[in-house]
Amino acid sequence: MFNPAAAIEDSPASWSPAPVDPAQLADALRPFGESRMLPVRAYLDERVLAWEREHLFNGWLALGRTEELARPRQMKAFAAGRGGVLVVRGDDGVLRGFENACRHRGHELLACDGVADNRAIVCPYHAWAYRLDGSLIGAPGFRNAPNFDPADHGLHPVELREWHGWLFANRGAGAAFESHVEGLDTILEHYDGADLVTVETHEYDVAANWKVIVENYQECYHCPSIHPELCRVSPPDSGDNLPPQGDWIGGGMELRDGMATMSLDGRSDGAVMTRLDEVEQRTVMYIAVLPNMLISLHPDYVMTHLLVPITADKTRIRCSWAFPKEVAAREGFDASYAIDFWDITNRQDWSACESVQRGMTTPGYVPGPLAPAEDGVYDFVHYVASRYAGQSA
Amino acid sequence: MFNPAAAIEDSPASWSPAPVDPAQLADALRPFGESRMLPVRAYLDERVLAWEREHLFNGWLALGRTEELARPRQMKAFAAGRGGVLVVRGDDGVLRGFENACRHRGHELLACDGVADNRAIVCPYHAWAYRLDGSLIGAPGFRNAPNFDPADHGLHPVELREWHGWLFANRGAGAAFESHVEGLDTILEHYDGADLVTVETHEYDVAANWKVIVENYQECYHCPSIHPELCRVSPPDSGDNLPPQGDWIGGGMELRDGMATMSLDGRSDGAVMTRLDEVEQRTVMYIAVLPNMLISLHPDYVMTHLLVPITADKTRIRCSWAFPKEVAAREGFDASYAIDFWDITNRQDWSACESVQRGMTTPGYVPGPLAPAEDGVYDFVHYVASRYAGQSA
Amino acid sequence: MFNPAAAIEDSPASWSPAPVDPAQLADALRPFGESRMLPVRAYLDERVLAWEREHLFNGWLALGRTEELARPRQMKAFAAGRGGVLVVRGDDGVLRGFENACRHRGHELLACDGVADNRAIVCPYHAWAYRLDGSLIGAPGFRNAPNFDPADHGLHPVELREWHGWLFANRGAGAAFESHVEGLDTILEHYDGADLVTVETHEYDVAANWKVIVENYQECYHCPSIHPELCRVSPPDSGDNLPPQGDWIGGGMELRDGMATMSLDGRSDGAVMTRLDEVEQRTVMYIAVLPNMLISLHPDYVMTHLLVPITADKTRIRCSWAFPKEVAAREGFDASYAIDFWDITNRQDWSACESVQRGMTTPGYVPGPLAPAEDGVYDFVHYVASRYAGQSA
Repeated sequence: MFNPAAAIEDSPASWSPAPVDPAQLADALRPFGESRMLPVRAYLDERVLAWEREHLFNGWLALGRTEELARPRQMKAFAAGRGGVLVVRGDDGVLRGFENACRHRGHELLACDGVADNRAIVCPYHAWAYRLDGSLIGAPGFRNAPNFDPADHGLHPVELREWHGWLFANRGAGAAFESHVEGLDTILEHYDGADLVTVETHEYDVAANWKVIVENYQECYHCPSIHPELCRVSPPDSGDNLPPQGDWIGGGMELRDGMATMSLDGRSDGAVMTRLDEVEQRTVMYIAVLPNMLISLHPDYVMTHLLVPITADKTRIRCSWAFPKEVAAREGFDASYAIDFWDITNRQDWSACESVQRGMTTPGYVPGPLAPAEDGVYDFVHYVASRYAGQSA
Repeated sequence: MFNPAAAIEDSPASWSPAPVDPAQLADALRPFGESRMLPVRAYLDERVLAWEREHLFNGWLALGRTEELARPRQMKAFAAGRGGVLVVRGDDGVLRGFENACRHRGHELLACDGVADNRAIVCPYHAWAYRLDGSLIGAPGFRNAPNFDPADHGLHPVELREWHGWLFANRGAGAAFESHVEGLDTILEHYDGADLVTVETHEYDVAANWKVIVENYQECYHCPSIHPELCRVSPPDSGDNLPPQGDWIGGGMELRDGMATMSLDGRSDGAVMTRLDEVEQRTVMYIAVLPNMLISLHPDYVMTHLLVPITADKTRIRCSWAFPKEVAAREGFDASYAIDFWDITNRQDWSACESVQRGMTTPGYVPGPLAPAEDGVYDFVHYVASRYAGQSA
Repeated sequence: MFNPAAAIEDSPASWSPAPVDPAQLADALRPFGESRMLPVRAYLDERVLAWEREHLFNGWLALGRTEELARPRQMKAFAAGRGGVLVVRGDDGVLRGFENACRHRGHELLACDGVADNRAIVCPYHAWAYRLDGSLIGAPGFRNAPNFDPADHGLHPVELREWHGWLFANRGAGAAFESHVEGLDTILEHYDGADLVTVETHEYDVAANWKVIVENYQECYHCPSIHPELCRVSPPDSGDNLPPQGDWIGGGMELRDGMATMSLDGRSDGAVMTRLDEVEQRTVMYIAVLPNMLISLHPDYVMTHLLVPITADKTRIRCSWAFPKEVAAREGFDASYAIDFWDITNRQDWSACESVQRGMTTPGYVPGPLAPAEDGVYDFVHYVASRYAGQSA
């Protein structure tokens, strides 16, 4: 008997192990220097995105910061690809994550980005009430219902990890978090991590595939062409990428002499984080924690981009700027030196990404070669192509 | 030879007899108290909606009111799912319905919601003229055309029924209208029906599946949580649903002592309909005439919602308020006491429905149980699930 | 191994030789006077549009005017269905066309409608530089790359033709341009062609299939109903269509006595083109160069419509008005007499086309017959239906 719903929802998974014909992936999987970009269909085809949702976005995903979850009984709903994740700090101080949908009719327990401070999780639709550990306290009107056991209707748990002030959720297919971020703790060690305070968030809707955005982030080969402001403070050919480890890629770039940070004039209105070593004080690190977070570590602030694929050719990006709490708390502190610089630079990037997306629709477009300066793009392309091909990274 | 058009248009019908795997429907079809909501795919999957268009929206559909069609030669075009229906009152006083598309090139004979008063139906594009019975009078320029017989090009008729002032059209698969509304005449008997005058119509675009909206309408279990205004005038736990009959479901709720009707202060600026009995004067009836009309009978006015599914997660709703004609004709009559109350309440409902729609996209969401107060939802879910499963109601 | 991308992109081609069941096309292919319109699915089904993109829009397409490409080193990017075409005039004076996508990562070489004047074609993203003949000069950072040969990365050429001041590109499947426009040079001979100057362009988004728009253009049977302004200056039943030749259809209509051109009062604020014969001075020619350009030749100006199908029910139209260069250069020359007339008339047409598109969604709509005055529509329908059926025109 035909099951249309199953056809739509299940098919992506049944495309396993490859959303793109492996023969077409051979060029992407060659060694760096001989390889090509991904087959163009990887950027245009909704069915590839459907496969990616099931296979790349079903493990550890970055949700955001824990800043608003410092005290017991605080809770916040985070967007997380399809649907959302409700994160709650229990009376025991432990953070727990749940699918953000009531077990009754599916109403969101808290609106996306919403925060609350409550002794229970109460669905706004019919007042079903859950303990902070997700177990159902009770549902109005079920007093005499013979077939209803609250124990059967606890919230669906989602595995959570708090890491340097960021929250990650595992939607089911993520392996050990330690292997996801293997080797990355060393890099983040001297930054203020959990003590950072987010000062501003911008949301951008970009008409490009999420992978075009990651590829753009992982190279500065384009900087001389489109980022004059960036090139004034950081030499575009500086720095190196780190050898791939875990599920992240990236590396660092240097600040020019006399430049304190990434800003329009190279000056900082904040303060260098106190535990940074001399090299870190002169470096900006650009790390993509795959699939959905880009972390940019500056000497005096940390910028993150969180990506939500909307369609094959549209991505929602939330860019946040965070500062050490002592700096953010200063009277009259003005973060615009960092925000303005990156808002300008972000928009230059999104414009280029959208042009790439349009250009790739041209008939006869074939994947191009990578320049020697695009080793970061290679790392990303290889990561994705390996998964398409069903190999481990 | 491949026929892509046939593939798109015909497939939904060929999914018969079930758009959702019957195994998944077993939980929805259990007796009340043990059953679950519909499989989540029924709310998310465009192919289920395609099936519903062919199998649930292809019989009797409510179009609207006949008020503007009182006199011979008056005509009006009503939206009716795909395309529209032109309703015309002939010189013989009989109402007739036609597909609202010229037999020549398909131009609408009258724009949706348009009214006209004319001796003939004249297509605005090339002036093909039809008699009020739909037969073609003539088409300009065909005088000497050898192969053209006007008798071959009459408008496609649509079966119509006028009922208590509302118009219903049968797009082909509806059984006898009497069985469609079986038992409902008794309920409507004392209301002013055909003598009501529509005073205002609001159009809402709601980002939720049409079934989420019907389910929300059929229970007041959510009222204490989201409708403080409603609870002030009507006890949310009052009343009972009627046993399902025909293709409608629903029941009544009581007004609190001292409250005359559903309004922000419980007062009416209209008048109780004269033929209502004592119980009806203290009751509001909430009836869903499936699949597309919700009728809310108040002592002093009647509100209707007409639903048009746009996509699986979007529904257009037209909400109209009608009053006895003597009331509507009063100098200075102000209907805002009824309109304001329900506009506020409608928006509370749409907000909840949209949250349910979003929440159901959460991975791992499974259909929840129904509360004892959700017997009206059960009746609706059972109606839909039975049709999915190919059973008669 | 499943290849979803291939499924989406390749299927349309594999529907060959027919996007619509030939049995359904029999009515459209009968002789004029007995034939019907295309099967309704041809106007509603995205998969038919996908087929048309591969089979009707893959040969010669009109891009626009060469006016901004008069001198060597001038270049302009034109929209051309999927992606765009970059047109460059070389130092040798020759116009060349290229797919508007860099061979590296696919960024557009020039934004759509963008113009430049440069000794090289430089990609804005990573500064890959190409000679004006499309060959790669070099790519930054590849100096020591062992596997990179610039000769492998020249721009993909697109065949171009300049014709009476318009540019046409062949995306691969076009036969000889001479046969595409066979017989049309005679008609255009006395008009100023390459010497025209475009004065204004309007962009319209129309909620109708591109074929509905062409059909509307090819008959004036609708003029008495919707174009009172047009009928005042040109008798709607005047003129004749020419026998089909090449890939174009159309014919002429007369101006009424005392009317100099198509304008609201029939007067011209321009000047009759000097080489027109007496008949041409009293005629407006309406020619559709299939699939995407409509040329309207007036005694004193030329209007063109370029069509870009967006979806099966949406078309983007760019309408341009061009005048002899001596007229356009006159001090105080005001083209609004021509622009206002056609902007009004265009909007009347788009409104009718949108109503046809909606009306065709009505269940049970069947293709209608053509009136004796719709021989131009017949020519178009026969052209399209023949291609659906896999026959040559």
